[in-house]
Amino acid sequence: MASVTIDSSICRVSFLGLGLIGGSMALALRQSGFDGEILGYGRTKQSLEKALTRGLVDKYTLDLKHAVRDVDLIVLAAPTLASERILREILPDLDRPDGPIITDVASVKGNLLRAALETCETFPDKLVLAHPIAGSEKSGADASRKDLFLGHRVIITPHASNNMACVKIISDLWRAFGAEITEMSVSDHDQFLSATSHLPHILAYALVNMLCQGKAGEKVFEYAAGGFRDFTRIAGSDPVMWHDISLANRDELLRSIDNFISHMGTIRLAIDKNDSSTLHDIYSQAKRARDTFGKN
Amino acid sequence: MASVTIDSSICRVSFLGLGLIGGSMALALRQSGFDGEILGYGRTKQSLEKALTRGLVDKYTLDLKHAVRDVDLIVLAAPTLASERILREILPDLDRPDGPIITDVASVKGNLLRAALETCETFPDKLVLAHPIAGSEKSGADASRKDLFLGHRVIITPHASNNMACVKIISDLWRAFGAEITEMSVSDHDQFLSATSHLPHILAYALVNMLCQGKAGEKVFEYAAGGFRDFTRIAGSDPVMWHDISLANRDELLRSIDNFISHMGTIRLAIDKNDSSTLHDIYSQAKRARDTFGKN
Repeated sequence: MASVTIDSSICRVSFLGLGLIGGSMALALRQSGFDGEILGYGRTKQSLEKALTRGLVDKYTLDLKHAVRDVDLIVLAAPTLASERILREILPDLDRPDGPIITDVASVKGNLLRAALETCETFPDKLVLAHPIAGSEKSGADASRKDLFLGHRVIITPHASNNMACVKIISDLWRAFGAEITEMSVSDHDQFLSATSHLPHILAYALVNMLCQGKAGEKVFEYAAGGFRDFTRIAGSDPVMWHDISLANRDELLRSIDNFISHMGTIRLAIDKNDSSTLHDIYSQAKRARDTFGKN
Repeated sequence: MASVTIDSSICRVSFLGLGLIGGSMALALRQSGFDGEILGYGRTKQSLEKALTRGLVDKYTLDLKHAVRDVDLIVLAAPTLASERILREILPDLDRPDGPIITDVASVKGNLLRAALETCETFPDKLVLAHPIAGSEKSGADASRKDLFLGHRVIITPHASNNMACVKIISDLWRAFGAEITEMSVSDHDQFLSATSHLPHILAYALVNMLCQGKAGEKVFEYAAGGFRDFTRIAGSDPVMWHDISLANRDELLRSIDNFISHMGTIRLAIDKNDSSTLHDIYSQAKRARDTFGKN
């Protein structure tokens, strides 16, 4: 982690939101040797006081305008839809040559891209969209850990209008936290993540919901084995976060849901028709792929 | 485990199938202090030799007729559909007052109930259907563990025609292995398990299958987080086992699939219509239920 240093132009960093990801970034930033000032902005005095006490921030404010004034780097780390609203609010003032670098940590990129283009006509050159593939079904600043990103992947989705020096500063920031960087387009990001992350959460929520409403009610969980425990762990995730992601990535998610229902239809038909060979093929192909993934 | 002893009438036990469950039962039986004879039957000499070497059995045979002759207890522990075939083959000879107790470990009970009724007219009083809710995505005798059932639930589905002394012998056998017994009807068992176990496996297989066939191919797994790893672990399960379960529990499973697709339809519509309140309600209800389950 010590081999990458944070760019010396970054002296004051403002975190807009200090949940699990924002809080863990603040801790990782301190750990990396950064000796500038860390400012925090959030919705409640209580949570910001806690962030101050835990040493996540040096100062805090409940005033957004104040939070983004005279800083070098803004990290948008509020829930997905709140991040979009904040971005729309701050961009008109900050999209200027001497403005700060703005980055984010949201699970969806398309809604932020659209918000930026609607607010600024051309994409702001100092806005670097990024998504750390790390998290937990635990949420909130209390769950923050300085090593949350160590060995994890961070997807950066650079825009053609981006100032490449800013993209490098954000990439290096994540590398300093021990993360690995992958670059891809916003549309690839939202498509891949809708399938590997957003859809599985919705499947887990839908399954648990269906089970509670069945004949046995919640007693049905007594008959569940270890596989079920693993399978549904993500249904314990923050409902607000997944509500936001579901709506922010709506189009890609609807496509993934339809694609999934179509795959389920193939399996359903094979079961209905006693089609052994199709079932063998589908289950075996999935096992091979999952085993390969499990080894990596 | 020592507080329950195995009925003294049980001196010779024959395992028809020595995979993970049969092998672990044989180990647990020895561990419980049983000093009778354990016989093994399987499809290949190689696997049976291995079972002998590991001390799972005292003797083995490749001849089914020989395996079920002069024994007090038969444990059907072959894959689900093979267990049904074997049951149909052995019941005509063994369903008699001085015949052995027959039990099984299969994940589906309805197909065995139908097989028994079709073979014997009335349900055999010494056939006790049982299902240990324990397992692993690892399969085979090599994965056997004497403590596999410790603290796990075993569902027994007694029939009105059952000899209750035989039901008690099988319940005590499982208690001696450290398991907890729940009794329910065959139809409740197959309905509950189709929802808590069979459906989740199919969802995991379908998801992994869909992902492999997408634009990024298997590279898409690189963008998956820890939640995905847990969610899809069961897609690494034995395809033959889940092929068998899918077909053996066909009717209940089709109902569970349809019920699930209907729940997915509700979520899909809410996403499509930007219906925040429905999404909040569904995700929050699921989180509450999953959190409660997680604590138990």
